[in-house]
Amino acid sequence: MATSLSNTSSFFSSTIHSPTIAATSTNRTFSYFKPSKTLPRKSVSMITCTLNNAYIPHHIQDPNRIRILDTTLRDGEQAPGASMTQKQKLAIAHQLARLGVDIIEAGFPASNKADLETVKLIAQEVGNSAAGHIPVIMGLARCNKNDIDKAWEAVKYAKYPRIQTFIATSEIHMNHKLKMSKEQVIEKARTMVAYARSLGCNDVQFGAEDAGRSEREFLYEVLGEAIKAGATTLCIPDTVGYNWPREFGQLIADIKSNSHGATNVVISTHCHNDLGLAVANTLEGAYSGARQLEVTINGIGERAGNASLEEVVMTLKCKGELLGGLYTGVDTKHIAMTSKMVEDYTGMRVQPHKPIVGANAFSHESGIHQDGVLKNKSTYEIMSPEDIGIHRFNEAGLTLGKLSGRHALKAKLFELGYNFDENELNQLFLRFKSLAEMKKIITDEDLITLVSHKVSEAQVEYYQA
Amino acid sequence: MATSLSNTSSFFSSTIHSPTIAATSTNRTFSYFKPSKTLPRKSVSMITCTLNNAYIPHHIQDPNRIRILDTTLRDGEQAPGASMTQKQKLAIAHQLARLGVDIIEAGFPASNKADLETVKLIAQEVGNSAAGHIPVIMGLARCNKNDIDKAWEAVKYAKYPRIQTFIATSEIHMNHKLKMSKEQVIEKARTMVAYARSLGCNDVQFGAEDAGRSEREFLYEVLGEAIKAGATTLCIPDTVGYNWPREFGQLIADIKSNSHGATNVVISTHCHNDLGLAVANTLEGAYSGARQLEVTINGIGERAGNASLEEVVMTLKCKGELLGGLYTGVDTKHIAMTSKMVEDYTGMRVQPHKPIVGANAFSHESGIHQDGVLKNKSTYEIMSPEDIGIHRFNEAGLTLGKLSGRHALKAKLFELGYNFDENELNQLFLRFKSLAEMKKIITDEDLITLVSHKVSEAQVEYYQA
Repeated sequence: MATSLSNTSSFFSSTIHSPTIAATSTNRTFSYFKPSKTLPRKSVSMITCTLNNAYIPHHIQDPNRIRILDTTLRDGEQAPGASMTQKQKLAIAHQLARLGVDIIEAGFPASNKADLETVKLIAQEVGNSAAGHIPVIMGLARCNKNDIDKAWEAVKYAKYPRIQTFIATSEIHMNHKLKMSKEQVIEKARTMVAYARSLGCNDVQFGAEDAGRSEREFLYEVLGEAIKAGATTLCIPDTVGYNWPREFGQLIADIKSNSHGATNVVISTHCHNDLGLAVANTLEGAYSGARQLEVTINGIGERAGNASLEEVVMTLKCKGELLGGLYTGVDTKHIAMTSKMVEDYTGMRVQPHKPIVGANAFSHESGIHQDGVLKNKSTYEIMSPEDIGIHRFNEAGLTLGKLSGRHALKAKLFELGYNFDENELNQLFLRFKSLAEMKKIITDEDLITLVSHKVSEAQVEYYQA
Repeated sequence: MATSLSNTSSFFSSTIHSPTIAATSTNRTFSYFKPSKTLPRKSVSMITCTLNNAYIPHHIQDPNRIRILDTTLRDGEQAPGASMTQKQKLAIAHQLARLGVDIIEAGFPASNKADLETVKLIAQEVGNSAAGHIPVIMGLARCNKNDIDKAWEAVKYAKYPRIQTFIATSEIHMNHKLKMSKEQVIEKARTMVAYARSLGCNDVQFGAEDAGRSEREFLYEVLGEAIKAGATTLCIPDTVGYNWPREFGQLIADIKSNSHGATNVVISTHCHNDLGLAVANTLEGAYSGARQLEVTINGIGERAGNASLEEVVMTLKCKGELLGGLYTGVDTKHIAMTSKMVEDYTGMRVQPHKPIVGANAFSHESGIHQDGVLKNKSTYEIMSPEDIGIHRFNEAGLTLGKLSGRHALKAKLFELGYNFDENELNQLFLRFKSLAEMKKIITDEDLITLVSHKVSEAQVEYYQA
């Protein structure tokens, strides 16, 4: 019975098992993929930086193929209270590889020694998996030699290493934070991209922090200079989550048209969610020509977080055709598992109404909706929970409460093995409604009690004096 | 000190007190406005249905003024597990009136007797407040006489009562759920809108359920017939959260151009968040001509919920100019309080990275961001917490953790009353970093312990043998 399952997680089992996930709207059991300590760690003596046939940093062969860059381990970890241990980060990186993300931003190696070591370990292990999909491993660096050296020291062990170096380009950031002139910022961008390339890294991403609030002509110029110096991807962040979709889409389109060389590199979105628009901005960016989208699992990150991977990827899956045929390489059936893993490791719980991965995302309470779903799921569901790897016990995803109707009660009772005629059902329904007035959610056990009471009532013959 | 505050709520105090709210990223104290039982309940013997000068159901004088319809008490309550008591609903309705929403959808009176009584009570009390803003009180009804009678029975006591009657217009809903032909649906819509008007209600909203997936020409026709029958507002729901912004905006624009009479009534959005696009769709709807936006507090509702009031309203506040000068009548400084109240009453907790009202929405952990915020808040903040009624103790909203830099540590210590020179600070910073490697969040108490340790160390002279 769904509600009798305990909420168990076996993070630390010693064997590797296939991920299984089963959920009702209220109870879930999970077993995560956990890389075994006995896996042979590949010895990487040679720094690999050549490009294979499949992966070309600055170019994607199919113009509709979107690259997904996951930054849960870097921007996600910047969420207050979300810091993770090295072991947890490595496990998440393995899971992200299984999910099929193209690039993992694994950390900010110059920020502290532990982060450098973690990024290095991820580069060595996840960036060189013996079988299956090997993601690019990226490290963040400010525009200075020390940061870039540290980033390279960490990522160079990956089969596909990438350095991202960034500098702010908005007036407010340049004046108040950097205290640098436009000329100084351009100079930094140019020389530091070139420096990263000079280390032997052929895959360099340049980020224009606070691009969403930057003066256009200046932004075009900085980006053009970065491309000239060797940047292969341009990251265009809406750092403070201030853009709205039309505005952000226009920004991407304008950069493509006006930054010298921009059509020969990959343009990336990086949207924050301060106004609740990160996912829409990201998609509008893709529609306007961006081919790399930066996201995090569950949308975690600084303040209100980043665009959420599951929302962006599932929208492209459901609506890709309308967006001109865009698609990603993500294997969506690993989404639920990855989400739960990040939730547990970071302690950042998602709300029940979180799209795609929240506990209520596939459950229906009101009578009208339950009636519809029982007749045909697509009346109120646009995707299937199985798409993201959830196999529900409660087939229709119904939660019984005071707004539930007769049809849902009958279906639920049938699922529990009871089949009442209309009269009996009507009597039970009245009792169910009284109970539901007092109790938020009616569990299977509650229903069984209701039913037993009915059965015993029917059996008793009162003594009539 | 921020962290020594206990998390107390005084819902049930016997006096009315001004709402006060104070928050840090981790601790908040709240006192809600609670309508006293001793407030005189207005005796309403006459059914008021005439329109005053200020409120005209089908027309808004200023073309840029957006009406906000809050449906927390109806669609919000449909979230599994979110049901509320009558007392709680009444308190929320009072709070929504203070927040300045234009219309409160108070419930679905035909669904059960308790709901009818609650809507009636809200109509009597909140719909007739002696002073200040009086919102329209709306009740939901399917397209049948019984539902409409019940809705009217409940809302007619309000100064501005409204009935919303709805029917599904998508093929999938008509075929599988309603089992009705197009002609039957049109007939129902026309006769039931007319029936609602015939009861004496001059403010009738017609909703075309699943409009987002409805065949266009048919939708135009149904809406045109509803207008002819007397509908004053048209609700266009993306019931299953399947649209993306460009698509939903186009839908609103097309309805305005093609439904006969649509330019003479108010068009309303009602967007669900299954793909994380509800807020963007709602805003795009407004940009395309909708002048009523249906939202819920914290974005709660069926499945992944509805467009969130706070995200829609704050975007219009921050970006209204870019959206052509659109604005609402919401007094945003009551947002935080209303959010907390709904969170507590429904048990639907918002995630820490929920935009606007999440615990992290105004906090900053990474060293780079903290440095920026300390130099100038607007480097990483696009609105002020005070805008939504939060007064933070910790002025810069900084949370100290392993990613924090020297600048933030110095600022925090200064706030605690310590002023160290650079050398001392460097020593403390090293110890702070070691501690932060082991502990997710460094509290004020942790810092005081670190400092005391430093002070005592300095005072001790070890005996050298």
